[in-house]
Amino acid sequence: MQMLKEAILEKGKAINQDVLLVDSFLNHQVDVKLMQQVGEAFAAYFKDRGITRVITIESSGIAPASFTALAMGLPLVIMKKQTSRIMTGDLLQTTVRSFTKGTSYELTIKREFLVPGEKVLFIDDFLASGEAAFGMLRLAKEAGIEVAGIGIVIEKAFQAGHDRLIGEGIDVYSLARVKSMSENHIEFVD
Amino acid sequence: MQMLKEAILEKGKAINQDVLLVDSFLNHQVDVKLMQQVGEAFAAYFKDRGITRVITIESSGIAPASFTALAMGLPLVIMKKQTSRIMTGDLLQTTVRSFTKGTSYELTIKREFLVPGEKVLFIDDFLASGEAAFGMLRLAKEAGIEVAGIGIVIEKAFQAGHDRLIGEGIDVYSLARVKSMSENHIEFVD
Repeated sequence: MQMLKEAILEKGKAINQDVLLVDSFLNHQVDVKLMQQVGEAFAAYFKDRGITRVITIESSGIAPASFTALAMGLPLVIMKKQTSRIMTGDLLQTTVRSFTKGTSYELTIKREFLVPGEKVLFIDDFLASGEAAFGMLRLAKEAGIEVAGIGIVIEKAFQAGHDRLIGEGIDVYSLARVKSMSENHIEFVD
Repeated sequence: MQMLKEAILEKGKAINQDVLLVDSFLNHQVDVKLMQQVGEAFAAYFKDRGITRVITIESSGIAPASFTALAMGLPLVIMKKQTSRIMTGDLLQTTVRSFTKGTSYELTIKREFLVPGEKVLFIDDFLASGEAAFGMLRLAKEAGIEVAGIGIVIEKAFQAGHDRLIGEGIDVYSLARVKSMSENHIEFVD
């Protein structure tokens, strides 16, 4: 997606070979017009697949996933990274490690929002090692739903997530695939 | 906002006199079509005030704030409840207690995204005691920006937040004001 790649080159900042800072338009300050186009790009790619629901993980996935769900006319479900005392009932949970942030969390969703037999589209801001996506896949399997595809805003193609997910037979559609980066240099796949 | 009140009555659930569960359309599963209309309602009310930026707090405020920012043609800034090792630089922080959830967090924003002299609109899903909104006000004051208004999806009008904010001279616009509730009963103001 050309407009996204231009935003990455103009406003993104490679801190080192692993960390790409895009907090001026994607995950702290958000260019919602760009996110709307991101959502429409996902909706166009994943149309006609019988998808019934869009899911994402709080909080950086919410903006692109909201616009995707709107463009597809579907409900959105936000998987949580933390529970609260008002989040009760039949919960599905799995531990996810974030290598980028050096943290881990309990990925949580109420079972009632993953209806057995449904086909879902998972949207997230980043794909690196794929830990979050694989956490989502574990919960989807436990819930008895099919993951019809994964839409990623920015993929670190030099990390293992993409190939691991392809290996599971998942269709992964990334709008920008970063091949390599270093301070002041970002290169895309193709 | 009639459509929102109907959603609250049909799909919301008062757990007790204080906790209103709206996780089937607002903060876990999200009705994005409704959120788009919520965003348009805020945009209509707060137009022509010279607002330059929409801000919210992760994560339940993001969907309604995204659609508000899009309808107003403005950038969105998401204030964080937790930092990570990739979030560095000049940070503004203040401690916020959530009485509903029984937790507290460090409300955090990079100073560069609150530009002195700007006028911002703060959007959030709930207003109860106003702790989050007052945390935002403290950071806005520290940054030297003006808060031109606060848009709330659901206000617990029986709690003190609304009056405390009005007392600070802030224009608070809530799309649904809950006067009282108990198990199986929700009553709105007016």
